[in-house]
Amino acid sequence: MEKSRLEKQFDFCREIDKEKFIGRQTYLSDASRKENDSEHAWHMAIMTLILSEYANEDIDILKTISMLLIHDLVEIDAGDTYAYDEDGKKTQHAREIAAAERIFGLLPEDQGTKFRALWDEFESGNTPESRFARTMDRVQPMMLNAASEGKSWKEHGVHLSQILSRNETTKDGSATLWEYALHNFIEPHVEKSCIKND
Amino acid sequence: MEKSRLEKQFDFCREIDKEKFIGRQTYLSDASRKENDSEHAWHMAIMTLILSEYANEDIDILKTISMLLIHDLVEIDAGDTYAYDEDGKKTQHAREIAAAERIFGLLPEDQGTKFRALWDEFESGNTPESRFARTMDRVQPMMLNAASEGKSWKEHGVHLSQILSRNETTKDGSATLWEYALHNFIEPHVEKSCIKND
Repeated sequence: MEKSRLEKQFDFCREIDKEKFIGRQTYLSDASRKENDSEHAWHMAIMTLILSEYANEDIDILKTISMLLIHDLVEIDAGDTYAYDEDGKKTQHAREIAAAERIFGLLPEDQGTKFRALWDEFESGNTPESRFARTMDRVQPMMLNAASEGKSWKEHGVHLSQILSRNETTKDGSATLWEYALHNFIEPHVEKSCIKND
Repeated sequence: MEKSRLEKQFDFCREIDKEKFIGRQTYLSDASRKENDSEHAWHMAIMTLILSEYANEDIDILKTISMLLIHDLVEIDAGDTYAYDEDGKKTQHAREIAAAERIFGLLPEDQGTKFRALWDEFESGNTPESRFARTMDRVQPMMLNAASEGKSWKEHGVHLSQILSRNETTKDGSATLWEYALHNFIEPHVEKSCIKND
């Protein structure tokens, strides 16, 4: 017997609880432990409420927040791929596509299709909302890395050139926020040698 | 020298990181550990995207999600008060008001006022959005308590009458979701004696 609409919806709501187990490489601001994907998404959603006024283009805030809330759900199956893990990044896309099929497939078809489209849009980064969401996805960990005195950058021996390359499109969502992050989060930690100047 | 608007905004964004340290009494679905406030808020925000169609009244989804994302920030100062901690609940309101003053006061005045109004509205529970948000705030932990085989209910020796009393207004946000929670999350755990039938 096919499950009811509400049963499918609660199956999805229970399944996404697993995102709370997906660890990231970013330390919390007091450097006591690393954050997980759900904490990261929550943090960016509130930051969007506060900082959307700096978006380069007009954005639909609910759409942007929805995208940020769900964009890491694929990592329940695919795991987190660290920003500077070049080997992991080679298989990342295929792993995440399979995860999107399974996880969004738990939902009633109309909602699954809508969430999948939001995830695809985030991945593409070719709309005002996804450009801003991707800027949040870069700025939030830089803010925490700076607050924890560069602990994650030091542990991974990250070079300035890697950060600048990874952030080539961060200005596309918000030139103001990228400038602020560069001068307040990155440059001081190059001076303190938490980030290797190359 | 007064801080710039953007500095105040980032001060707030950094401060709220502390919500990730505020533990709740609800276990994650696999019962391995308890969740924290930021994970709880993230979970309810996505559940609102999925389940808002069952709200008794038309609701503004962005407003409802914003309320859920920020409603526990006061616990950074005031701590989490367990649902069935009658002593803690006596001082809860005063502790939370002071916290709201300080934490929302970090923001530029226009945004601080807006967030404070959202928090007050959530607390009041007298608008369609706050009624639905409060229903989410009850249904999400019941869903997790059921998924973890009533671990938190058993640990605290919770009685059915306490749950029913705490959930007197849960139907006000969504009669459908309350009915579902009662039949699928609560009643089976009374039968299994995870909840004391009194």
